[in-house]
Amino acid sequence: MTRNLAVSLDRLLGRIEKLAEIGRTDQGGCCRIALTDEDKAGRDLLVAWMRELGLAVRIDRIGNIFGIRPGQEDGSPVMTGSHIDTVATGGRYDGTYGVLAGLEVIETLNERGIATRRPLAVAAFTNEEGVRFAPDMMGSLVHADGLALDEALAARGTDGITLGEELRRIGYAGDLPVGTIRPHSFVELHIEQGPLLEAEGLTIGVVEDLQGISWQEIAIKGQSNHAGTTPMHLRRDAGYAAAAIAEFVRRIARDMGGSQVGTVGVISLHPNLINVIAARARMTVDLRNTDEMLLQEAERRLAHFLDEIEDRERVVIETRRLARFEPVRFDGSLVEAIDATARRLGHKPRRMTSGAGHDAQMMARICPSAMIFVPSVKGISHNPAEFTEPEHLRAGADLLLRTLVDLAA
Amino acid sequence: MTRNLAVSLDRLLGRIEKLAEIGRTDQGGCCRIALTDEDKAGRDLLVAWMRELGLAVRIDRIGNIFGIRPGQEDGSPVMTGSHIDTVATGGRYDGTYGVLAGLEVIETLNERGIATRRPLAVAAFTNEEGVRFAPDMMGSLVHADGLALDEALAARGTDGITLGEELRRIGYAGDLPVGTIRPHSFVELHIEQGPLLEAEGLTIGVVEDLQGISWQEIAIKGQSNHAGTTPMHLRRDAGYAAAAIAEFVRRIARDMGGSQVGTVGVISLHPNLINVIAARARMTVDLRNTDEMLLQEAERRLAHFLDEIEDRERVVIETRRLARFEPVRFDGSLVEAIDATARRLGHKPRRMTSGAGHDAQMMARICPSAMIFVPSVKGISHNPAEFTEPEHLRAGADLLLRTLVDLAA
Repeated sequence: MTRNLAVSLDRLLGRIEKLAEIGRTDQGGCCRIALTDEDKAGRDLLVAWMRELGLAVRIDRIGNIFGIRPGQEDGSPVMTGSHIDTVATGGRYDGTYGVLAGLEVIETLNERGIATRRPLAVAAFTNEEGVRFAPDMMGSLVHADGLALDEALAARGTDGITLGEELRRIGYAGDLPVGTIRPHSFVELHIEQGPLLEAEGLTIGVVEDLQGISWQEIAIKGQSNHAGTTPMHLRRDAGYAAAAIAEFVRRIARDMGGSQVGTVGVISLHPNLINVIAARARMTVDLRNTDEMLLQEAERRLAHFLDEIEDRERVVIETRRLARFEPVRFDGSLVEAIDATARRLGHKPRRMTSGAGHDAQMMARICPSAMIFVPSVKGISHNPAEFTEPEHLRAGADLLLRTLVDLAA
Repeated sequence: MTRNLAVSLDRLLGRIEKLAEIGRTDQGGCCRIALTDEDKAGRDLLVAWMRELGLAVRIDRIGNIFGIRPGQEDGSPVMTGSHIDTVATGGRYDGTYGVLAGLEVIETLNERGIATRRPLAVAAFTNEEGVRFAPDMMGSLVHADGLALDEALAARGTDGITLGEELRRIGYAGDLPVGTIRPHSFVELHIEQGPLLEAEGLTIGVVEDLQGISWQEIAIKGQSNHAGTTPMHLRRDAGYAAAAIAEFVRRIARDMGGSQVGTVGVISLHPNLINVIAARARMTVDLRNTDEMLLQEAERRLAHFLDEIEDRERVVIETRRLARFEPVRFDGSLVEAIDATARRLGHKPRRMTSGAGHDAQMMARICPSAMIFVPSVKGISHNPAEFTEPEHLRAGADLLLRTLVDLAA
């Protein structure tokens, strides 16, 4: 019966287009920041679509939206979904693709009159991007009991308003207690936001794990001095120390290999003048690894180098932890099942690690979870130029469809 | 007659204090950037003092100010002087000390009724610091015919205004053709702006040579990408390239040794975000050596490394030369004479290299020139904390007095 089951690409693209019109920006991008008027308009459209498809819409106290399709039996639903909020310079696929592909799965099943044993649910989680309210992935984190509801509602936005106030203002402070809907399993379909699938000419990524993330800010205090008159051995150069640390971060990634990456995205010197040895530097270090022990090893190597450079350059270094998430391993048998389904559909799925954070990593705390990736052209995301080939969007949605049907059977 | 000839420290300190009030900054520093209203106010005060001392004031077309005390005979004057413009975070001694000590020499001679055979001149050169208009040491460079007047007047400031416009606005576009006053000799008294004299417990430095200076701006273009999803081998990280270059500049200085120094004072990344690989970086490299061949060698090593990192990181690097001065050797017999006078005054003079650029290096193109240094506490300069002990200020001014009297005899 489900042998030639397939989604409608036109319908899926139509919904992506329609949602992208809300918060549309100049270069074809999208700005639909969490709990703004644009987010409300996007939610309203999503809820209307869910109702059209006959889904029972439930909104919980943190504003997560669930559309539920009953199964032949009661019980935990097989859930898919993602988020529809964006960053300020967002594209039209990040998050929305996963949610709208979920609707497309539902519509395809409705059209064919296919019933599943378990219920199916499509979720749109509140504030995944975290650009206005911290932390990111908030809705799924609260749903998975990783953050208290009160704390989340009290989160103050970059504009000073609390998330709770904004939820009420836009009419999405629902009455469903958070965490009520405990899924049987969770599968999130998402664009890769990285270059690997495209670089290797592949269509489907099956995500086995997510990198742990360690963010630190490093402040270096040296001594401002004249670039000509100060002999090298008397310098306390905060700028040199920053450069040496950035170079060492690369060395950590190179020496450790595997999934270890390291990035220094921020360097600011003071006074930042051509002929003045920098008195102060501020920089950030972003370290990621899929293995917690190895991530800790990377942190240790960095800490050791900071001690060394502090002595060697006679500067004072202070570090501040900005974020820390342990790596997440997705459910092995679910990953295996998705992989097998992808092969049956004729793909050569690539096992992948997600370098970005996703709602699925929070859901993994409460149920077997995994993710499907489709290619991002040039790996570009969080950018109006974000793009995925329609055929890849179709392939991902078809794989999601088969996976959900199998899980719900 | 000149056996116990000595300056008045109180008078010298009084003038330094008074001039420091113009452009005074919070921490006791001074901001009197070239051709601003503050520079004009400083010039007005200087010219008033020159007139009070009976000097004939001449202002040339680039705004250099000369105060001339006639000699018993006509002819080329023995000249001293420096500059009164400062950097934004300037102190009260850099430049001003040399100009005001020149006035103090004049006042001491006036008071004692001492005439000299040759005329004496005190000069304050335009735009020595070069923070608003490039190049630095501009007034003396134009005076010594190293830069065409038209080109200097057309120099556009960081605020977009030309130097010529500003000179007229503040009333210092003089009518004396540049280079008219050709000195018999030139002696510049200056704070060391480095730590050596203090570290060795000495009072007087006699400067034999000046480092050559090579300034470059380096622009790096990479590819902005996600810090988590982009594998290390696919990165084109402009921030990493900048750090590697800064680290290499230190290696040049370490490997070459001798007088070679190297500084990266400016690093700016874009977009400068913690989880985004930098798309662009801008940085400066300041290389100095007393030997032109070695300075060229340092430049070659840097250029070679830029090629290497461009290939290795697949970034595009563009360099722009901001300044290039060959090393300068001061006049051997003048250096010898100052050294001997210092010894007669009871000092143990230290032969020195200047790591900073000074107007004297431009004057060396047209007449026998040399410099006298006094200690800078902790080597700090271009900083409100710039300080020289009053007794050291006195010792330097007394040595300048004897030297000028001898040269003008």
